[in-house]
Amino acid sequence: MNKKGVLIVISGFSGVGKGTVVKKLVEKYDYSLSVSATTRQPRPGEVDGKDYHFKTVEEFENLIDYNGFIEWAQYVENYYGTPRKYVEDELAKGKNVILEIEVQGAMNIKEQYPDAVLIFLTAPDGNTLKTRLESRGTEDTKVIAKRLKRAFEETEDMSHYDYLVVNDDLDICVEHVHAVILAESFKTAKNIDYISNMKEELSKIRKEITL
Amino acid sequence: MNKKGVLIVISGFSGVGKGTVVKKLVEKYDYSLSVSATTRQPRPGEVDGKDYHFKTVEEFENLIDYNGFIEWAQYVENYYGTPRKYVEDELAKGKNVILEIEVQGAMNIKEQYPDAVLIFLTAPDGNTLKTRLESRGTEDTKVIAKRLKRAFEETEDMSHYDYLVVNDDLDICVEHVHAVILAESFKTAKNIDYISNMKEELSKIRKEITL
Repeated sequence: MNKKGVLIVISGFSGVGKGTVVKKLVEKYDYSLSVSATTRQPRPGEVDGKDYHFKTVEEFENLIDYNGFIEWAQYVENYYGTPRKYVEDELAKGKNVILEIEVQGAMNIKEQYPDAVLIFLTAPDGNTLKTRLESRGTEDTKVIAKRLKRAFEETEDMSHYDYLVVNDDLDICVEHVHAVILAESFKTAKNIDYISNMKEELSKIRKEITL
Repeated sequence: MNKKGVLIVISGFSGVGKGTVVKKLVEKYDYSLSVSATTRQPRPGEVDGKDYHFKTVEEFENLIDYNGFIEWAQYVENYYGTPRKYVEDELAKGKNVILEIEVQGAMNIKEQYPDAVLIFLTAPDGNTLKTRLESRGTEDTKVIAKRLKRAFEETEDMSHYDYLVVNDDLDICVEHVHAVILAESFKTAKNIDYISNMKEELSKIRKEITL
């Protein structure tokens, strides 16, 4: 019905399963996924250019200087950034682009792209979130405590998001995020051209019948 | 996540397949369907109390006098109305209630229930709409011309709806309407209680870890 690409920002608490949700979403539906750049160490199995563009601090800071990111932020002592070129090219092609970014970056995006759709992934409740952080096993207790502190702070920012989607069952969560993006594309404000086309067509058809 | 019932208003051009979409939606998902009252003649196969509450003009006007409708309107010389009691009872129970009503009634509902979600079902284009009206076979040419005139007028009102959903393929259309209703329930503004609960829980959990 409409051909404009939607910019979709997905954030969420650490440990809530953002990465898995986004991976499934992109496998199942026709979204363009922006791969972030980061200075953090790759986790086991992560592939450069697929999971992240892994950069040194020097490389990252150089890209900042050259305006190579539409947003960048520091989170748990590492840089994260969204490369400008890919996002702008895909949106121009009419593709829906997904960014998986942290809260700071999301707020930054909303300022620059007021039509962006901000989705916050959350857990059914606080204890579930804690359990997920613990069972992840790749972080020590200190990091978990730090992430819970961060999660607590992020509850303040949740209200700036357009939608909150609970990740309880992975497949259901993926469908719910997809539903949000679909619904956004059906908003009347995004289909003004369709209305004027329909009006013109019906005006013509009526005249033909009356003749 | 939230327990409040959503009031969903579904309108659309005559011939667009509103009735079939709503029927499938209610069969497949857990919605409460409000059955309208009308003074128009039953079509073959329509069942009183299921498709409509069929009323005489006298009965209908009496119900208007007794405030028995949350909205009523006249359309192609017949009365249509939404019985008040059913809608208010279901919403109070936390159920999502679907109303299939005409444009006049929808505008009326939006005034009384600002949180209502207004969905307009439309055809892929004007010619498809004309073809559907013709192939329906239960109406003569005069009525078709009248309905096309009405459809043309209704394009003016489309912009007052929250969402436009195209009925091209029936099953896809049903999923799209369901997606819109799902998405509405995930809106941050409708989940303020969830945010404050999460904040409280995370605050407690952090203190336990620090101790």
